Amino acid sequence: MEDPLARLKNGTLKLYALESEFPPVEAVRVRRNYVEAESGADLAALGSFSIGIDRVVKRNIENMIGAVQIPVGVAGPIRVNGAHASGTYWLPLATTEGALVASANRGASAITRAGGAEVRITGEGMTRAPIFAARDIVHAAEIVDWARTHHAECAAAAERTTSRGRLLSVTPYIVGTNVFLRCAYDTKDAMGMNMATIATAEIANLVERETGARLIALSGNMCTDKKPAAINMIEGRGRSVVAGIRLTNEQIASILKTDARSLVEVNTRKNLIGSARAGSLGFNAHAANIVAALYLACGQDPAHVVEGSTCITTVEETEDGAYIAVTLPAVQVGTVGGGTGIDTQAACLSLLGVAGGGTPEGANARAFAEIVGAAVLAGELSLLGALAANHLARAHQQLGRG
Amino acid sequence: MEDPLARLKNGTLKLYALESEFPPVEAVRVRRNYVEAESGADLAALGSFSIGIDRVVKRNIENMIGAVQIPVGVAGPIRVNGAHASGTYWLPLATTEGALVASANRGASAITRAGGAEVRITGEGMTRAPIFAARDIVHAAEIVDWARTHHAECAAAAERTTSRGRLLSVTPYIVGTNVFLRCAYDTKDAMGMNMATIATAEIANLVERETGARLIALSGNMCTDKKPAAINMIEGRGRSVVAGIRLTNEQIASILKTDARSLVEVNTRKNLIGSARAGSLGFNAHAANIVAALYLACGQDPAHVVEGSTCITTVEETEDGAYIAVTLPAVQVGTVGGGTGIDTQAACLSLLGVAGGGTPEGANARAFAEIVGAAVLAGELSLLGALAANHLARAHQQLGRG
Amino acid sequence: MEDPLARLKNGTLKLYALESEFPPVEAVRVRRNYVEAESGADLAALGSFSIGIDRVVKRNIENMIGAVQIPVGVAGPIRVNGAHASGTYWLPLATTEGALVASANRGASAITRAGGAEVRITGEGMTRAPIFAARDIVHAAEIVDWARTHHAECAAAAERTTSRGRLLSVTPYIVGTNVFLRCAYDTKDAMGMNMATIATAEIANLVERETGARLIALSGNMCTDKKPAAINMIEGRGRSVVAGIRLTNEQIASILKTDARSLVEVNTRKNLIGSARAGSLGFNAHAANIVAALYLACGQDPAHVVEGSTCITTVEETEDGAYIAVTLPAVQVGTVGGGTGIDTQAACLSLLGVAGGGTPEGANARAFAEIVGAAVLAGELSLLGALAANHLARAHQQLGRG
Amino acid sequence: MEDPLARLKNGTLKLYALESEFPPVEAVRVRRNYVEAESGADLAALGSFSIGIDRVVKRNIENMIGAVQIPVGVAGPIRVNGAHASGTYWLPLATTEGALVASANRGASAITRAGGAEVRITGEGMTRAPIFAARDIVHAAEIVDWARTHHAECAAAAERTTSRGRLLSVTPYIVGTNVFLRCAYDTKDAMGMNMATIATAEIANLVERETGARLIALSGNMCTDKKPAAINMIEGRGRSVVAGIRLTNEQIASILKTDARSLVEVNTRKNLIGSARAGSLGFNAHAANIVAALYLACGQDPAHVVEGSTCITTVEETEDGAYIAVTLPAVQVGTVGGGTGIDTQAACLSLLGVAGGGTPEGANARAFAEIVGAAVLAGELSLLGALAANHLARAHQQLGRG
Repeated sequence: MEDPLARLKNGTLKLYALESEFPPVEAVRVRRNYVEAESGADLAALGSFSIGIDRVVKRNIENMIGAVQIPVGVAGPIRVNGAHASGTYWLPLATTEGALVASANRGASAITRAGGAEVRITGEGMTRAPIFAARDIVHAAEIVDWARTHHAECAAAAERTTSRGRLLSVTPYIVGTNVFLRCAYDTKDAMGMNMATIATAEIANLVERETGARLIALSGNMCTDKKPAAINMIEGRGRSVVAGIRLTNEQIASILKTDARSLVEVNTRKNLIGSARAGSLGFNAHAANIVAALYLACGQDPAHVVEGSTCITTVEETEDGAYIAVTLPAVQVGTVGGGTGIDTQAACLSLLGVAGGGTPEGANARAFAEIVGAAVLAGELSLLGALAANHLARAHQQLGRG
Repeated sequence: MEDPLARLKNGTLKLYALESEFPPVEAVRVRRNYVEAESGADLAALGSFSIGIDRVVKRNIENMIGAVQIPVGVAGPIRVNGAHASGTYWLPLATTEGALVASANRGASAITRAGGAEVRITGEGMTRAPIFAARDIVHAAEIVDWARTHHAECAAAAERTTSRGRLLSVTPYIVGTNVFLRCAYDTKDAMGMNMATIATAEIANLVERETGARLIALSGNMCTDKKPAAINMIEGRGRSVVAGIRLTNEQIASILKTDARSLVEVNTRKNLIGSARAGSLGFNAHAANIVAALYLACGQDPAHVVEGSTCITTVEETEDGAYIAVTLPAVQVGTVGGGTGIDTQAACLSLLGVAGGGTPEGANARAFAEIVGAAVLAGELSLLGALAANHLARAHQQLGRG
Repeated sequence: MEDPLARLKNGTLKLYALESEFPPVEAVRVRRNYVEAESGADLAALGSFSIGIDRVVKRNIENMIGAVQIPVGVAGPIRVNGAHASGTYWLPLATTEGALVASANRGASAITRAGGAEVRITGEGMTRAPIFAARDIVHAAEIVDWARTHHAECAAAAERTTSRGRLLSVTPYIVGTNVFLRCAYDTKDAMGMNMATIATAEIANLVERETGARLIALSGNMCTDKKPAAINMIEGRGRSVVAGIRLTNEQIASILKTDARSLVEVNTRKNLIGSARAGSLGFNAHAANIVAALYLACGQDPAHVVEGSTCITTVEETEDGAYIAVTLPAVQVGTVGGGTGIDTQAACLSLLGVAGGGTPEGANARAFAEIVGAAVLAGELSLLGALAANHLARAHQQLGRG
Repeated sequence: MEDPLARLKNGTLKLYALESEFPPVEAVRVRRNYVEAESGADLAALGSFSIGIDRVVKRNIENMIGAVQIPVGVAGPIRVNGAHASGTYWLPLATTEGALVASANRGASAITRAGGAEVRITGEGMTRAPIFAARDIVHAAEIVDWARTHHAECAAAAERTTSRGRLLSVTPYIVGTNVFLRCAYDTKDAMGMNMATIATAEIANLVERETGARLIALSGNMCTDKKPAAINMIEGRGRSVVAGIRLTNEQIASILKTDARSLVEVNTRKNLIGSARAGSLGFNAHAANIVAALYLACGQDPAHVVEGSTCITTVEETEDGAYIAVTLPAVQVGTVGGGTGIDTQAACLSLLGVAGGGTPEGANARAFAEIVGAAVLAGELSLLGALAANHLARAHQQLGRG
């Protein structure tokens, strides 16, 4: 048998077809060697992975040449008092940004010492919004009317494709001859984009058949997936999570080395006013950092950091301290499917006690979503606390000068 | 010497302090074992990493317990005709989303067959925008005036902290008593947030001393870092990159199996109109997917996917085909610092020929930014092409019905 | 009796109290004279109004000193094929911007010659969103749950305050400890802000009583009233109106002196792409101009021009021409209440055949909303047509040069 | 001579051509009569105007049939401590919204009693942003480069068209093949859109000639005129104005019947957090109301209320009270041109002492812009004060219940 590198070179073997001739590990090695030969680069480091890739090459990636390794640190334990996650958790954070784990750790510690983060899921629904072209605006208005009055038919069509998913709602939007139907699903423990897309395809067929609408794309960008969008900020996507912690003046002084008023001032000026003038959809300090690190460790889709970044952080003075909260309208997580089954990622999910499908269905993904909320709260608390402490120190210093 | 697990348990040894007693690999193992014992989870998979972690535990992460592995596939080769990146590249993409590499690959192939993607950097400047409190709006206006007339002093202060960075501009913004100074830097081959932060601290000191302003935070959220924000869409952050490709009708038909008009229609209805009604800052199909995969492979900060998602994709009919372009106002990449030095990530950068500092300084980061632009173009082209082909097939089918 | 000017001067008579001593016309005159004396300005012009002010000084204004006069021109007649407005209308436009009426007139004429504008109302509901403070996020989540399960009680409370209004929905939103309940009402022929506010006050009382929430303000800015907001763009406010017109190639050539492709190009580049990069919520050419002129003529609240400006204009090529549409998510108009009863404004409403309450209730406001849609379409068509014609002329010129 | 109504009816006389045969007042009367005959509506009320219309029919309106009258009330006097407006002013407010003048009046009174509003203009420049099509992105990048290096040529071209205007800057933006050049002008006492448009046409010619760019439209929507847009919020348009007032605890208690903390709470929860979640570009209570009323009284373009609504209101506790400020990034006002010369509007401008051109040029428009800032501050202060007082009362009541 001819050398595969030579066959790749002369075109008689295709790079994507290696898995059909070789076992996965071997296919990956040959491909990497070929790319090394073509590019002159040394890619040996990518080859020393330990994850089992039989499933990976079928489901998670094409043209695999190896794996990158991202260091994982732990923060915590953090006490979470959620409706679905209740207990003490070690947070696995995959990152290469120095100081991030340490910062989350400080926040987690403050939260735990103060009794734990309160967390609630206030909305649920993974969305897909196909776009249809109508003949004219009269036709478009008719399609909208049809959608408003045929929920049962849409649900029946959608749910034929899934044993678990459930259609929650179909909300129509119109722009000229364009009709968008934002379909929201309960996708249980799956993040659910695939499930939602497949189910929505059936709804789209039905709509085309019944209304004469012309499907342009299964995603019409009003979903909105992986783009920052006010619609997600306002209506939510995936799970909408809110987390909060009450700190006494004493706790603020001893743990964060600052005071309630400084915390409020930093948050209002930076996170609310600064973001307002910047035309931002994210009113927080660094939610994306925590979301990214947790998502990467746990096999989530890193492009969903986009939605995770649209967090609003609020701080208010209370009678004897402060109340700090984060609101995350669009936490899109799953504990089955996607990258959750890869060995290292599965280990991180198991560290949180949420690996695989939950009992009842959806329980694990909900618990995970609440943990995300608590973790982001830890990150915000830590950074705001550091800024406020700094700021207080500086204020004292300035008084000292005078 | 007592068992470290026991000492961790009884509190005489701190989890973060393991590296001061043990060599890094050993410290990581002990810490992982401790967390396993505490949580009951099996984290062995995290332990089989091969990256050298001596530097990692000092610079990239705290409380390390191991590493996650993310599969890497290649797309390409893609022909890039940039001002800084010129040639044919294999794109390393780290992802667990099935079909993503295949999609990018199709787009890359189309681009290469059509002669290559034109790419240009149209703006540069990593930004940090400290926020100051003024006594009142008169004072605030004075601080703004000061900033407008003391660029040289600010540059001198900033550049004392860096041998490479250069202050490009300081743009003041005001909201009531809040003054924001958006400082932009040429950070050469570094992504530059740290450099920008350290340099800006000096400017902030100067501003406080000279104007009596009170620094609230070195980031006042008008930077804007890791939050979607119109200011980045409008003014750019890091590198602003635009990439485009001209396709003939023949190429559109043979490569993408569609026609120019369908490409335009899908893009206008979905990416422009759908995103408009959604109140989105991202007018594209799935730029975040490509950005995330490339950033992860190459050791970039995954939270910068947020800015990467604010891409505008445009398609227009030309006399004999279509011109497709992507505009990425905020590509924040580096080839030195951050996660770029980790073995597997360094290998991916070397595959692109942009590992380490460039000659002249900045050349590698610029080339990398242009490659990001071309890769996003490939992703958009592939997805839009597939949608348009589908759409065309469906249209023909409908006609056939009649 | 002492001279009122002297008494105003010495403080024994209050400026706002003149109406309690004098008949309205006299009170206004005395007040104007006093302000003239105090300021040295000649305000005689303000005094020669002809509107009956007995009701005006009670309902529409305080401290009246006279009136400004704004010229009114007519555009049209414009043919409207709506579900509520069907026929041919003369549009009264109050403006001081030269060329505006002429432009609207050209557009109206084009529409009429092409058979009339199709118009539909695709959503209805005047909104008020009170904001409540909760004790913590758990309490906040409880309030949200309460709101989701007590629609009937809320409706009963709200509808006690109004014989006509009807509560359509209560949508809860949460940010940390802040709960917003966006209450939407069918307000029939009234624009409805007052009705909505009064009814919502009852709901707010109920919520406070039942949940322990603390009302902060009857408007929590998620209504959103008189501020540009994605929530209105996405969910609508008042009436959501869409209007469209199909033009043949012949009509485009003969009436607009351009071609379909140029119309599409101008609209896509300017209204869609330009607005995208500007971070805008308005994707149109000059909808605000038409909205402002029509609102002023017809006694509407001019601050609602803000919402009127968030229009999306779309143009697409059809088999034999182009289809042009405008989508106005938030048309807030009434034909009773507010400034609609003032003589000159009532005359303008009567010119449209929509003065006063309709039969059935709401019919006049709906018809008016559809006319607004058609008028904005006329304005967009005219301006886009002029740009495209210009552009085509220029293109021909350039070819000629070669 | 035949009856003009008959000639209008049979088409031998055109409605727009009446002014060429009749004196303005007569032309307006004939046209009104014709429209009355056609529509059956009684438009007599529109006919009893007193403004001189010889100039109006030439410059401000076409197809005039009469005028609407809008009642004007006064608020104040308000003390303004600006850099351009310094003194005590009676604010003319044209509105039909009951309670608005009274509310502004309370705010004005509070400001005056507290010593006056501090106001500053922090930026200036009326903008026009033409859009050009480039051949491809390389060409687009070249056009951007050209614009960055040819300011002097652009200024020379622009300033040939105006004796007063001055080109301040040309900022290029790019989206694929679209290039936008945002040209900013000092337009002195004129609002300046016309001046800016005419001057920009010359720049556009130059750009086309020198770069081969193809002009699509003189406004490419990045100006951004009469559409809500982050670019105006961030970079400003017209004049950027900030106004503030310091109130002691005593003043807050005696004048506003509330306390500093309640003021802060209402503002943060409603104006900052509520607007954030709504995806709004306006972080204020009702700035648009004040802007609309003042603009209408003073002959400004009511469609500019859109930009006026993007105000950010901030309230912060101080050592002995609170500091309240409003930031208006885009105040587009003039004291010459547009509707400023109409008798009633000119009277309102003269009441403010800013009618006509200032000395030096621009002085009147600057003073007017500062007065707008102070007036909006009055409106915000009044409404926030009322909400906070209510809120405080309610809190006391609740305590009382216990």
